[in-house]
Amino acid sequence: MRLDQYLEKKRKLVDRALDRYLPAGNVPDRLVEAMRYSLLGGGKRFRPILALASCEAVGGSIDAVLPFACAIEMIHTYSLIHDDLPAMDNDELRRGRPTNHIVFGEALAILAGDALLTEAFRIMGEAALAAGVRQRRALQVLTEIAAAVGPRGMVGGQAADIAAEHSQADLPLVEFIHVRKTGELIRVSVRTGAILGGARPGQLRQLSRYAEFLGLAFQIADDILDEEGSVQTTGKLAGSDRRHHKATFPSVLGLPASKQRLRELLDQALEELSSFNKSAEPLRQIAKLIVARACVA
Amino acid sequence: MRLDQYLEKKRKLVDRALDRYLPAGNVPDRLVEAMRYSLLGGGKRFRPILALASCEAVGGSIDAVLPFACAIEMIHTYSLIHDDLPAMDNDELRRGRPTNHIVFGEALAILAGDALLTEAFRIMGEAALAAGVRQRRALQVLTEIAAAVGPRGMVGGQAADIAAEHSQADLPLVEFIHVRKTGELIRVSVRTGAILGGARPGQLRQLSRYAEFLGLAFQIADDILDEEGSVQTTGKLAGSDRRHHKATFPSVLGLPASKQRLRELLDQALEELSSFNKSAEPLRQIAKLIVARACVA
Repeated sequence: MRLDQYLEKKRKLVDRALDRYLPAGNVPDRLVEAMRYSLLGGGKRFRPILALASCEAVGGSIDAVLPFACAIEMIHTYSLIHDDLPAMDNDELRRGRPTNHIVFGEALAILAGDALLTEAFRIMGEAALAAGVRQRRALQVLTEIAAAVGPRGMVGGQAADIAAEHSQADLPLVEFIHVRKTGELIRVSVRTGAILGGARPGQLRQLSRYAEFLGLAFQIADDILDEEGSVQTTGKLAGSDRRHHKATFPSVLGLPASKQRLRELLDQALEELSSFNKSAEPLRQIAKLIVARACVA
Repeated sequence: MRLDQYLEKKRKLVDRALDRYLPAGNVPDRLVEAMRYSLLGGGKRFRPILALASCEAVGGSIDAVLPFACAIEMIHTYSLIHDDLPAMDNDELRRGRPTNHIVFGEALAILAGDALLTEAFRIMGEAALAAGVRQRRALQVLTEIAAAVGPRGMVGGQAADIAAEHSQADLPLVEFIHVRKTGELIRVSVRTGAILGGARPGQLRQLSRYAEFLGLAFQIADDILDEEGSVQTTGKLAGSDRRHHKATFPSVLGLPASKQRLRELLDQALEELSSFNKSAEPLRQIAKLIVARACVA
């Protein structure tokens, strides 16, 4: 298989679905514009694609996964909008474009984030109501996603991240932050596809561990790219973590050890997929791509 | 029945449940403190009590309603925290205490709001999973709540409210804003109790209309109290809407016509309950109390 073609095809599928799911009518125009600006602003759709690929890895049909994959991307986008706010990371550039509050002002940026988070749950609720005999499974996924992005998950990670700025972070703290801030949503993305795709308990356990290794690898790679990359490769200003005194892997381990850790995580992630057949090939190649980008850059 | 005793009993029930539902452990301390500060900061629990009273009006058991009632209060609290932010209404006083961002800073206030909104859906998801044969009903309620507080509902109302500041609002615009900003959540609170309590279709329609009249009356009363009341009765500084150039009923209709409208809405709300027996007495008295507070003040 060609990974670039696979990613492109899935990205288009997700983009079209996201466009359909955005509200039209009976909503203040500027609010919809602010939601569309960030949601349809050219993301790689990494998390929704993981959900679709995970469903395919267990031989499921992706139709049932698509609304949940879109909801996950909406939640991811809300978190970026709020994280970029002046009171938080105060970033002016995201995916190579001005951040939401730069374009729409802080009030609308806060509300656009709130609206995307809330719409995500409405869309999942509607999908679960339409899921027939699989309603319980869909409800399980909705609840897991809520847990992954709440105070014990993503929001807690962001709170810990802000608290850790300007302090001397150690490895356990960096892992605490990263597991919550990015790891939990990546893990639940993979689990969403697996659960809705009908994974057997053993498969679900393996895919969950794959996702834990992948999530940590993703964040280490992101830290490395932030340190070494340019605005062209990351869409952000290089060294932005350092300027914000963020707790990162390179700042704690150094670059060579961070890259070594990344390669180990790739081996561990692939090991979890060893009993899967060719249908898990996209998941394997996605893991390799993440590590390759950071270790070549 | 004595309404004050009824409200006090229900308020305590809700307060105890909210305390149980707040996260403990594995969450950054300051985030939990910020969530607790606003959620347990002495609200009247108007919306959750409406849900419980509506369930009782149709003869249902309130046990199944309690998690959803608490989720509604969490969502209400998140909206207050975000509305008070400097970028939004920039309020420093709420329920007679400093607002969340004054105490915890803007970053944590944004995150505490995000966390409360997300926890609300996790709690509803868990409750729906535990609802057995009534799972579909619970999922229906979760989805209705999401719709009521998203871009077509509460968040859209807040966006329209901010857009309308400093502009000359007319009655249709004031109603557009108020129906969304406060009406939708009040309506869905009543529907939550009715649906989970097993209301027949006709009862559900009547209670929904009762809630629409009540929601509008609530907002008009709030506008009047804001105009006439003191920090003692409202917990806010008097005339805060006027200082923010907010679109309100008194500003468009004048005070006498606003009070007249309020009394008409009370009659309409009570009319919808005419076929209910004594079990709807709390709903009747709540409507009367709301109108009396504003028309005596």
